[in-house]
Amino acid sequence: MKEILAVIRMNKVNATKKALADMGICGLHAVKVMGRGKIQVDFSILQELGAREEIGGLLAEGLSEGARLIPKRMLTILVQDGEVSKVVDTLIKVNKEGNKGDGKIFVTPVLDALRIRTGEQGEAAI
Amino acid sequence: MKEILAVIRMNKVNATKKALADMGICGLHAVKVMGRGKIQVDFSILQELGAREEIGGLLAEGLSEGARLIPKRMLTILVQDGEVSKVVDTLIKVNKEGNKGDGKIFVTPVLDALRIRTGEQGEAAI
Amino acid sequence: MKEILAVIRMNKVNATKKALADMGICGLHAVKVMGRGKIQVDFSILQELGAREEIGGLLAEGLSEGARLIPKRMLTILVQDGEVSKVVDTLIKVNKEGNKGDGKIFVTPVLDALRIRTGEQGEAAI
Repeated sequence: MKEILAVIRMNKVNATKKALADMGICGLHAVKVMGRGKIQVDFSILQELGAREEIGGLLAEGLSEGARLIPKRMLTILVQDGEVSKVVDTLIKVNKEGNKGDGKIFVTPVLDALRIRTGEQGEAAI
Repeated sequence: MKEILAVIRMNKVNATKKALADMGICGLHAVKVMGRGKIQVDFSILQELGAREEIGGLLAEGLSEGARLIPKRMLTILVQDGEVSKVVDTLIKVNKEGNKGDGKIFVTPVLDALRIRTGEQGEAAI
Repeated sequence: MKEILAVIRMNKVNATKKALADMGICGLHAVKVMGRGKIQVDFSILQELGAREEIGGLLAEGLSEGARLIPKRMLTILVQDGEVSKVVDTLIKVNKEGNKGDGKIFVTPVLDALRIRTGEQGEAAI
């Protein structure tokens, strides 16, 4: 079993849920996160800061970046080992716009799963 | 060390916290998630949709399911290896109503833990 | 690759983000959690409860503790294996006040990472 974490744009959640349901992947949960990827320099703001406050571009970059987190949705999807690649492919297909901020996907190991209602354990619980 | 993730009903959080505290498991955090389990077909709605809009039941199922996430709480509980089974048993005991939506439990590996205040590491930090 | 989970005080998020950006660690996301560490007995409240309601201190401790979760922020930081120790050191440096509630850090394994925009995989995606 694997846990697939996908940090995606807020406006892609419904299309992603729909695409996963269509392929039979139904167990997931979503949480609102504030995310930040690699540093993206906004040069117009940097120049403004640099001109007004006479601070170096590098410092401005660090400061502006330190304060900026973008609202995102993180989906957690529990899948069987054999489903990882098709789920990842679907996540990319739905969420890839070719722009920064499209998001990231992580795969982490899961040792055991259990459905509370029935006590089913392991892959049967997914 | 293990991380136990339990996605449970919102109205079970207090009873679950209390039960865990009673058995000496005190370190946990809770986060609001929107969750979805296996597809549950609501036939009355499907029939209504099918009659009114003349769309197939399968399509209706996919559409309705794609849009429906239920608010849940996800508890993250860090435990020592030897505590996993008793914590899981307690989670089931408190949260099992026998209905769909009772929730799920996942166990994932933790490589290291660290208490910021003291620098204690490993199982001592749990 | 590793996932570093840090549960920290809400008022430490900005300083922590800044410190991580300064060392080149830019990919992170933050989520609001309600957390609870080890049982902390508030003796004045216990005595009050004990005097007024004639219940044992142990019971009072369990009850009061069962109901108390503190708002925290959980940061999730994806790093390469060689970056774990310097990120953990930075997290401690920024967040250690020497008081209970300073927070905890957990390190969990990540099997794979993927940048949706480019399809970059593994450590290149972090």
